[in-house]
Formats: sequence, structure tokens, C-alpha cells
Amino acid sequence: MSRFFSGKFDALTPYTPGEQPKGQTFIKLNTNESPFPPAPLAQQYAKKELDKLQLYSDPQCRDLVAMAAEKLGVGEDEILFTNGSDEVLNFAFMAFCDAAHPVVFPDITYGFYPVFAQLNGIPYREIPLQEDFTIRVEDYLGLNETIVIANPNAPTGRYLPLSDIERIVESNPESVVIIDEAYIDFGGESAMSLIPKYDNLLVIQTFSKSRSMAGARLGFGAGNKDLIRDLNTIKYSTNPYNVNRMTMAAGVGALEADGYFQVNCGKIMETRDWTTKKLEELGFEVIPSMANFVFAKHPDVPGKGLYLALREKGILVRHFDKPRLKDFNRITIGSREQMKALIRALKEILEAEQ
Amino acid sequence: MSRFFSGKFDALTPYTPGEQPKGQTFIKLNTNESPFPPAPLAQQYAKKELDKLQLYSDPQCRDLVAMAAEKLGVGEDEILFTNGSDEVLNFAFMAFCDAAHPVVFPDITYGFYPVFAQLNGIPYREIPLQEDFTIRVEDYLGLNETIVIANPNAPTGRYLPLSDIERIVESNPESVVIIDEAYIDFGGESAMSLIPKYDNLLVIQTFSKSRSMAGARLGFGAGNKDLIRDLNTIKYSTNPYNVNRMTMAAGVGALEADGYFQVNCGKIMETRDWTTKKLEELGFEVIPSMANFVFAKHPDVPGKGLYLALREKGILVRHFDKPRLKDFNRITIGSREQMKALIRALKEILEAEQ
Repeated sequence: MSRFFSGKFDALTPYTPGEQPKGQTFIKLNTNESPFPPAPLAQQYAKKELDKLQLYSDPQCRDLVAMAAEKLGVGEDEILFTNGSDEVLNFAFMAFCDAAHPVVFPDITYGFYPVFAQLNGIPYREIPLQEDFTIRVEDYLGLNETIVIANPNAPTGRYLPLSDIERIVESNPESVVIIDEAYIDFGGESAMSLIPKYDNLLVIQTFSKSRSMAGARLGFGAGNKDLIRDLNTIKYSTNPYNVNRMTMAAGVGALEADGYFQVNCGKIMETRDWTTKKLEELGFEVIPSMANFVFAKHPDVPGKGLYLALREKGILVRHFDKPRLKDFNRITIGSREQMKALIRALKEILEAEQ
Repeated sequence: MSRFFSGKFDALTPYTPGEQPKGQTFIKLNTNESPFPPAPLAQQYAKKELDKLQLYSDPQCRDLVAMAAEKLGVGEDEILFTNGSDEVLNFAFMAFCDAAHPVVFPDITYGFYPVFAQLNGIPYREIPLQEDFTIRVEDYLGLNETIVIANPNAPTGRYLPLSDIERIVESNPESVVIIDEAYIDFGGESAMSLIPKYDNLLVIQTFSKSRSMAGARLGFGAGNKDLIRDLNTIKYSTNPYNVNRMTMAAGVGALEADGYFQVNCGKIMETRDWTTKKLEELGFEVIPSMANFVFAKHPDVPGKGLYLALREKGILVRHFDKPRLKDFNRITIGSREQMKALIRALKEILEAEQ
């Protein structure tokens, strides 16, 4: 820390991203990336921008907004695109939380929420998940706090049905309820259909996972137009040209190619079910997942040991060294071949243990 | 504004970006874009990323940092890349300014500085430029405030020689001095050479103008490694994957192609001199510029009227409707052909006035 760093960040602990090793020697099952490249149309549209990069991108993202309105069924004034969904999450923490309106989220969830709260000086409270990692809906009814729920949750994969989400949104009319749907496309039902009914609902999604665009950085918030206007006030006071031309064009292509998107999501769900079955056959406890990862532990091998043994064999998974999580590993669902390699490696590790 | 918007933003007035009309019908001389496409190598490297966008970008930007260290002569721990230079500017306001250490900048400069201050709840003070838009160096000596100076300044194009910058940095050892060099490559001398000597100097640059990458969004901060570490703390608490794969690769190519870059900067400087001469022949007062734009006014035509008349003729320039600026227009230096079209249009407008 330099002697110039503002004291208001004394207690700030930055987020730790998953390891991004250089080169492609690892089977990378640690950051929930898609095993599929982006839609050919997304690549093609991005390519057309390469010789126009001297011109600023459109701060209003008009083409992308129009395509999203058509494909996702939201109004053009009900959506805001950002440089990955982390950016719109931060904007939402800034806009809708403060000392007078603190924020609340589960104790086990996306590790960035407490960081955004610390960064913005917002008091926060963590509500413990139940023993089996499910959210107790009653804990979130009638609060006077901004609520953030990842659905499906990370790193567990646990999913709350839309009726439960609606109960929470309905019972907190004076607070914004942020539903972070980074993993919704792998079998869940989006809360976007509730936007016309509730002016306090903000749905956040990303193109990183289901649309294979983690490296392009594109996310969005969708909600009542007044919420979106507030988020735009933050955007235009932070980084108006936040989405670059290539990513914006790729996003249009990714939305247009909805067939490609649905086939890929279907394959990942099939592979998730196959992987879950194989893991269970090997004695793992696997939390039921609606995401593109599974959260699993084995009675005989500690979580960290398993993580290290897999790493030794060239397979990266994500281990969280925290009290309630340390027995588990979060394993991204990759291609069928990658998951076969994972299961082979796990067999060898478990046999060596005996 | 929604009823949920935090009261802390009551006085926030977002930045107004220059107009980005859809289609290519205008000669666009309003947002200081380069008339040249990005370096072929930049385009080529970005293209190679298109089928890898399913993978996250490297949050450490290792390839880009290594190339910057080689080409710009900074240490690898002395530079931080961001999603355009607006992002690193905001990070610097967050990191190095607060109620105990307010910020100061000229009254006429990049319009985003007061917005960043408002956004982050930082008290700020504006020091009036002299009548001819020059900075009085004495006004910036021995302050106990974080200092932000755009050099060359916008929208005037006025440039402070490096010796003056050094006097300011040297006389404020307890405050960070931020030199925003968005336009430094058009004839100015960068303060980056002073980084080894002063731990309170932060130099900010962008790839938007001289490297033809406005639409790719790439900027950086360079300074003492402790300052850069602080900015990384903010980055990893905000948006760790802030630079996407395509832009990161294009940045490597743009740095590698330094010949292309220098030729383009040379052409723009030549065209700037040609344009200045032609404008003066038409009776304009042109502020001496070291940027890729000129700031000019005509004794016979009000600034706004001239802006509107040019717009009518299909040429966009930037007019600022503010007391000290309203007689002027800021005109980006485009290609020689575009500037010839501008001069022709101005002749017609002035003849019609008589």
C-alpha cells in the first residue's frame, strides 16, 4: 500500500479470481467457462469491427439493446449492458445500497458481494444457508435491506424456483431485490418474466457462461425502467463507453444465434447429469446443481487434498478454503471428453488412497 | 430516478459523451477519434482471440504488461491496464482522494473530473486557467490536495512542458499528482520518464487516440509500484477481468507496431498545422495545440451558430455551451481530405454571413 491510499479502504479485501494459467496445458474446470467457442455469428460480427476500432463504441449500445429486447422479451428501456456482469453488480451496489439501506445476502454465495459492499462502504449482513446449502425463503421476507441472491447459487449450484423468488420480491416492496442469474440458462427459469409486475426487481445475467463469452466481457441488468435509468446515471458517471465495439457486435451475434446457444446449454446439462452420476458411483456427495458446475465432496479425501491431487494430474478445479466449503470442490462442466478425463483421474486418486 | 436510488447521488451530474450518430453519413470531427484504422498487427492479434472468447481474459494482462514494459520503458509492476483510461482515472480518484485529501484541477479541462469527484463524494476545487487558457504553474505548487492535470489540456490543446510538470510533482511530495496524457503523442513529452524519480506521480494514457483504438477501450496508469498496487486493489475489488481478450491482444499488436503509430501521429501533426494555418487565413483565432484537435473561434460567428451550420453541412465538431468556452469549437484533426472538406464548409458559412 502506498502512503497515499485512502484510509476508507483499510478493511478492503479484494476478490480473488480463479487461477488463469498461461498456455493450455491444464484441463480447466475451475472458472465455469464454457467448453464451446462463441457462436460463429458472434465471431463474425466481432471480426467486422476490427478495422473500425478507431471509432468509439456506442455508449447507448443501441443495436445490442434492440436485439436483446427482441430475443429476451424486455423493453428497450429495461436493460443495461456492462463490461461483464461484475460491473452491473457494482453499479447496483452503488445505486441501491447505502448506510440507510444496507445489503443482505447468503453467507455462502458469490464471493464478490462482500467485496462490493466493502468497496462502497455499505454495511452488509450475511444470512446463513441451511445445512444442506439451501436458502430458507422465510429469512428473506419483509426485510428493510437490499437483497442479493445468486440463483442458481454459487458455488453450490442450488436453485430456488421462480415462485420462491417471487415471494421474496413481493414481500420487500420498499427494497431492491437483485437476482444474479449468471447460471440461469442451465435449467433454471429466469425472473425476467416478473419485471412488468415488480418495480423493485433487478435481474442480472452474463454472456460469460451459457453464451461462451467470458473473455469478451458482457453482462446486463434488466428491470423496471426507473431502476435502469439509475444504473445509467452511474454508468455515465463512471465509464460511458464501457462496452467495446467487438464485444457489442459479438453480443448481437450471440443473441441472434439462439439455436447454437440452446444446443450448447442442453449438452452441458446432459454432461452435468452424466458427471453427477459418475461422481456418485465413486462415492461423492454431489449437491443437486442447476448450473454449469457441480459442488462435490468425498468422504475419504479432504477437499484441498483432492484439489491438489487433480492439479498434479493436470486438471484444475476450484477449492474454497473456508469453514463450510473446504470439504468440497467446485467442478466446472466441460466437454464430455474433459469430464471423462476427470472421472479417470478421480478413480486413480481414490484407488491410491486405499 | 427510482425511489430506491441512493440519496448520496442527489447532486451527481453524469458526463455527456460526444454525439455518436448511427451510420457514417457525417464527417465526424467531434470526439477526437483517429482517422486511421488500428495497426494491421493489432487487428490480426485481436482476430486470433475470436474463437477463444469462451475463456476468461488474463486479469494480470501479462502479455500486454510485458510488451508495454519493453516499448514504453516502464517496469512491469509500474503499469496497470484498464477498460479505457476513464476507468483508471476513476480508480485513481477512488484510491487517492477523499474528504481528508480533496482533489484540485483547472476550471477548464476534461469534463469527467468533476463527475468522478461527485461520484465518489470527494470535495473538489477548480483553479481558473489564465485568460489565454494556460495553466499558471504557481497555482499548483505546494498544495495539500491531489492534483489532476490533463497535458495537453482538453478542450484547449494547450501543453505544459515537462519541466513545468516536474516542478508541480516535486513541490507536492505528500500528494499524488495525476497527469492525464490522453493527447501526449501528438508532439508532447510524456512525464513517464519521471516515474523513477517521484513516488507521487501517476501518468495516465489511452490507446483511444494515437493508437486508433477508441472503440476497443484500452487505457493505462503508470507510476511508482506502490501506487499501481493500490490501483490494483481497487481493480480487483471492482472488475478483475476489466480488459477483454480481443482488446488485450490488439493492445499488444498496437505497441509492437510502433512504426505505424509514429507515422500516423506525424501525419496528424502535419494536418493539424495545415488546418491551423487555413483556419487562421479564414480569420479564426486558434489556440496553439499539441493535441489531435484544435480549439478555435471566429470573431464574426458565435460558436454555437458555427457548430450548427457545420452540422447542417454534414460535419460534426464539438461545442461546449459554457461561459468561457461557448465562443469556440473543438475540431478533431481527421484525414487531410476531411479537413479540406471542413475548410470548404467554413468558407461557405463565412461567405454566407457577409
